[in-house]
Amino acid sequence: MGSKPKVTIHHIAEKLNITASTVSRALNDNPRISEVTKKAVLKAAKQLNYQPNNIAAALRNGKSYIIGIIVPTADRAFFASVVRGIEEIANKLNYKVIISQSYDNYEKEVQTIDALLSARVDGIIASIGKNTENFDHFKRTQEKGIPLVLFDRTTDALEVSQVMIDDYLGAYKVVEHLIQQGCRRIAHFTSPKKVSIFKERLRGYMDALRDYEVPFYEELVIKSNLQLEDGRSSMEELLQLEVQPDAVFSASDYGAMGALQVLKEKGIKVPQQIALAGFGNEPFTSFSDPALTTVDQFSLTMGRITAELFFEHFKTGPDQKLVPQKTVLKPELIIRGSSLKADAPKS
Amino acid sequence: MGSKPKVTIHHIAEKLNITASTVSRALNDNPRISEVTKKAVLKAAKQLNYQPNNIAAALRNGKSYIIGIIVPTADRAFFASVVRGIEEIANKLNYKVIISQSYDNYEKEVQTIDALLSARVDGIIASIGKNTENFDHFKRTQEKGIPLVLFDRTTDALEVSQVMIDDYLGAYKVVEHLIQQGCRRIAHFTSPKKVSIFKERLRGYMDALRDYEVPFYEELVIKSNLQLEDGRSSMEELLQLEVQPDAVFSASDYGAMGALQVLKEKGIKVPQQIALAGFGNEPFTSFSDPALTTVDQFSLTMGRITAELFFEHFKTGPDQKLVPQKTVLKPELIIRGSSLKADAPKS
Repeated sequence: MGSKPKVTIHHIAEKLNITASTVSRALNDNPRISEVTKKAVLKAAKQLNYQPNNIAAALRNGKSYIIGIIVPTADRAFFASVVRGIEEIANKLNYKVIISQSYDNYEKEVQTIDALLSARVDGIIASIGKNTENFDHFKRTQEKGIPLVLFDRTTDALEVSQVMIDDYLGAYKVVEHLIQQGCRRIAHFTSPKKVSIFKERLRGYMDALRDYEVPFYEELVIKSNLQLEDGRSSMEELLQLEVQPDAVFSASDYGAMGALQVLKEKGIKVPQQIALAGFGNEPFTSFSDPALTTVDQFSLTMGRITAELFFEHFKTGPDQKLVPQKTVLKPELIIRGSSLKADAPKS
Repeated sequence: MGSKPKVTIHHIAEKLNITASTVSRALNDNPRISEVTKKAVLKAAKQLNYQPNNIAAALRNGKSYIIGIIVPTADRAFFASVVRGIEEIANKLNYKVIISQSYDNYEKEVQTIDALLSARVDGIIASIGKNTENFDHFKRTQEKGIPLVLFDRTTDALEVSQVMIDDYLGAYKVVEHLIQQGCRRIAHFTSPKKVSIFKERLRGYMDALRDYEVPFYEELVIKSNLQLEDGRSSMEELLQLEVQPDAVFSASDYGAMGALQVLKEKGIKVPQQIALAGFGNEPFTSFSDPALTTVDQFSLTMGRITAELFFEHFKTGPDQKLVPQKTVLKPELIIRGSSLKADAPKS
């Protein structure tokens, strides 16, 4: 241990030649301790660089003014932007935000909870990992009286406030648009996981096909992890079919980008031969050529609303039970070159 | 306050009808406390859902097994990847990682330190914000005995271990490559800030021009915040010049991407008329058309090395002073279509 050991109440006690429990009581502003002793303890604490915000405050009222956020990965523009929205509201209320990443790994997600509890957060805001099917770690935090709010990747298995977007509607709008562009064999990239957002997007896709009487082909639904590489291999798979699709709607922008790369490498024209659309409005979707049609999720707004629902926990009286609220945001279809078949020069 | 108050040693004391200091001593495994009492305290702590990892551990040895990371923004692929490298090493040693973002804002950076200290981290790993010129907040953490290691955006104003890449070399290689492609009027997008990475990239640019006897034009060096929008306006500015550049080397990938958008909108061929290169190897650089020449910073490796230097703090004996180390990684030039003038079809 090359670093200096942290200063504890025992160091203060030693310096003043009093007991640690007296120090603890003094720091807790216990009326049984004289003002003279309290002043001496505070002075010594300052000299020794003891952090009163820290343990003393925890003993006093259990408030750290820190909110812990759990996200699968902080580098997705979507999650980054939700976090930004949460921080905006939290900072106004003098709360600070720390982030822990689950990397969509169940074990790591459980550990993020441990880390945030050790960090003595006043509450947790989380988006659940793709592979999580057991929610006991979240239940345990609730049992400890730590407020929990979920966003985007939520579950009804927990009694919590949650903020999500209408994934069904977003997917429906995309497929409706592709049909209006003249597409009749529309493929879909989805996830095999039991995550509601992907199930809802699949449902929106199927309902739009049904409502517009466009045939549904089982073979055009490709399941994968929806990353860039998955989009590439899913597209390769579709191109092996006897009758190829005339459009692909990927439940993630990354998957759509992988498909675009393969189509460009093979000289297949987008959107003329195959139209493309993603979901999420990641910044790179506007950089690609053609730019990618996608669905915007109002991530900043989602963050702000999530934070507001979170702070509701601190407004109710001690005897009131907070009634969990579910907020569903309407997403927006962003139409770009990758699907504008009608306007594109004929090949 | 609707959430349950956190369980403290006082609750345990009350339940067992003993003093809080006895509870504290029992939790600290103090030999003056009987085994029977220790067992009773542990049992009560469990029943009350008291978190022994937390305050008791802090009183015991000041270890939380949490490392706090400060990054300007966690959504940059570069920072995300460094964090991943740090977590890889940290998790192997049973340390957890929490992240706090400074958003390149000095005031927020100071607050991130406060948040991490309140979260009782065992140490801090940071990349300094672009606008930070006073380092007292970092000095204060060092004075508290909290180990600090810096990566990428570092400073010699602090006596700390640091890991960076050879920005000078990366920039030199880019400009050397552009010259070899036949470019003779090479513009550079840089930052007006006193951040060493940008100063080093500028120096590499100037030295490569000088070594290859390619003229340097003051008017071709454009200062901005290097975001996408800045890249757009910097490119517009260059296009106003009487003699336009035949290449642009942007000190950030975002700036280069903004320039690419403008050039494509105006029908200026890349790389035939103007070659382009960025810095950082953000994932979107491989999605664009043409794909962007850039510099890879071995971010995952940087994270791993940073973590290893960090853990050196816990290896030295109590009387040894840790000698700060500086590790400089060699970056790699990634040549892609945006600068391959020689191979591109003539326009």
